[in-house]
Amino acid sequence: MEYMKPFSFDLIAKDGAARAGVFHTPHGELLTPIFAPVGTQATVKAITPAQLEEMGASLVLSNAYHLYLRPGADKIAECGGLHKFMAWEKPILTDSGGFQIFSQTNQRKIDADGVDFRSHIDGSSHRFTPEKSIAVQESLGADIIMAFDECPNPHDRTYNEQALARTHAWAERCLHAKKRPDQALFGIVQGGIFPDLREQSAEFITSLGTPGVAIGGLSVGETKDQTYLILDHLNPILPEKRPRYLMGVGSPEDIVEAILRGVDIMDCVLPTRMARNHAAITLRGQLNLRNAIFAQDQRPIDSECTCYTCRKFTRAYLRHLIVAREMLAATLISIHNLHTLIALAKELRQAIIDNRVQSFAANFRSTYQKRRPPEL
Amino acid sequence: MEYMKPFSFDLIAKDGAARAGVFHTPHGELLTPIFAPVGTQATVKAITPAQLEEMGASLVLSNAYHLYLRPGADKIAECGGLHKFMAWEKPILTDSGGFQIFSQTNQRKIDADGVDFRSHIDGSSHRFTPEKSIAVQESLGADIIMAFDECPNPHDRTYNEQALARTHAWAERCLHAKKRPDQALFGIVQGGIFPDLREQSAEFITSLGTPGVAIGGLSVGETKDQTYLILDHLNPILPEKRPRYLMGVGSPEDIVEAILRGVDIMDCVLPTRMARNHAAITLRGQLNLRNAIFAQDQRPIDSECTCYTCRKFTRAYLRHLIVAREMLAATLISIHNLHTLIALAKELRQAIIDNRVQSFAANFRSTYQKRRPPEL
Repeated sequence: MEYMKPFSFDLIAKDGAARAGVFHTPHGELLTPIFAPVGTQATVKAITPAQLEEMGASLVLSNAYHLYLRPGADKIAECGGLHKFMAWEKPILTDSGGFQIFSQTNQRKIDADGVDFRSHIDGSSHRFTPEKSIAVQESLGADIIMAFDECPNPHDRTYNEQALARTHAWAERCLHAKKRPDQALFGIVQGGIFPDLREQSAEFITSLGTPGVAIGGLSVGETKDQTYLILDHLNPILPEKRPRYLMGVGSPEDIVEAILRGVDIMDCVLPTRMARNHAAITLRGQLNLRNAIFAQDQRPIDSECTCYTCRKFTRAYLRHLIVAREMLAATLISIHNLHTLIALAKELRQAIIDNRVQSFAANFRSTYQKRRPPEL
Repeated sequence: MEYMKPFSFDLIAKDGAARAGVFHTPHGELLTPIFAPVGTQATVKAITPAQLEEMGASLVLSNAYHLYLRPGADKIAECGGLHKFMAWEKPILTDSGGFQIFSQTNQRKIDADGVDFRSHIDGSSHRFTPEKSIAVQESLGADIIMAFDECPNPHDRTYNEQALARTHAWAERCLHAKKRPDQALFGIVQGGIFPDLREQSAEFITSLGTPGVAIGGLSVGETKDQTYLILDHLNPILPEKRPRYLMGVGSPEDIVEAILRGVDIMDCVLPTRMARNHAAITLRGQLNLRNAIFAQDQRPIDSECTCYTCRKFTRAYLRHLIVAREMLAATLISIHNLHTLIALAKELRQAIIDNRVQSFAANFRSTYQKRRPPEL
């Protein structure tokens, strides 16, 4: 399988294990490290593509499992593909459906060839195989597509060993099934919390020669320290000249710690999900804007933030929208949360280029606390 | 009470009874005829002020009753007033609370002095008088404020006679209570479906000398023909040199017919409420975008519309968002619906200036049907 020229990765700076680079895709460059908003159902929830552009997003995730079920990958292909369907002209990455099938469906039956499952929407029966996942992702047409993998409980050694064998066999089948030259397939390193399994997986996945390597199965139940240990362990094993995508990670502290450990791409539903639950993310910690203390607070969420929400609206107004159950609350807080994480990755990128990422991280760690005191 | 200079109305063209003008306010000019989106709770539902700007909105309505209850008019005053609170720097009009108290509350008790009512939110007891309504609206700080009026069933002659006496007495008290020179108070003509009561009311309200005159109590149960008859009857009675605001009217056909009968300002919750119920407004009729017929429809809602939604998204995508219960559906359809009505009023304005409003209206009437066939 030939790749189009676009999928090259320029590593432009290193600062310790942290890396700054440029990944070229058919829909434009990704300046790494980068944080990607998630648009599960072909929309970042409550946000227009124009708002995504304004907040500086360049990569958006979407999801093969969800779009296969609704509206159907063939339907999206008939609409001209996912970029045109959702009106996002910059790069898109689709997940393979593996994680969703293992986390959102009932009555799963796994065999060597694939997985039978029932839709979380209507209980209808479906089957995904590596070939099916690739076919779905080729219909969708994202720039980056993911190998179909099995996502076991990260603490169960025996299950992880079995799942890893399947995930590796499936990754090879994905590579063989793949036909479109304008999509980059990323293999996924699994292995739970077990460094030796992770090492074995990293070596196998790397050997496939995919233009990027993903790290899956973290942020699904293990501790932060376990995640960081795995990242430290993987850093010297993963190929330097290919982008590394840590799947599903996205708190401010995780973004900082992952980038320090060599991660290039991250995504998470956290910023938009938290926004719908009235929580604002800042680099000094999280604020629950429903709190009555904000009723007369004339400050923006974060006085140092340059997002649309912080330039225009006060905490008092956002709290009013929440109490009055206005949809605009979710939109405005989502804009802020996404902007914060996108900007954080950009600042880390500049710090890497300037060779000051350790002091940036030290400064971040000294001011960040998970629950920000509301007087701040 | 002195008015600031801004509140002058330049009548720049007439075409039959239809009028084109400019109403000057402290937050900018209103080019009439104009359609105003409604932001009941200090937000146009699901829409940011930036999106309102992009769709060409210049006047936004809000509501004394709702904001008095939540978050409180005093709170908004402490936040610097409604313009700053909701980040809308162009003109705002607030309704007095009259209509809402008579349509949304329980256990109302009306006396000559005012109305006791219970909040629709928590059942708490409150009292509005003309003076209270003006105080609330002065705290909010809109450019145009409304007299406190009683809104009876339009078909009940006896009740309309009694209510009209109160509405007139209350309008005088509003005028005396009003202190801020940077707000224009509009009196409201009531009188139900009865031409003689309407005439009597128009003469009284006009005699108060307010910078604008509103027509209330229509679109609350009477037929369209009754509304148009009242507008025809009022047209020669209302002063030519003041703007005329028809309250709560906003279907495409009502906008056309009202403007033909001399109306300058209109507002309605219809375009945003319909959007949340998946209905798109077009000048050829209404489309219910949930309909399965749209699942593969690659056209925009309206191929002649220049709104963000129609420039970027297909009916197939909007239907997907609706079926997937994504909030973005309400946002995108609201953008389209509001843009359509705002643009319709602007087109009518140009047709008046060009002296071709009758042919514009004839063309509109020949193509508009309430339910648009989906194949169009």
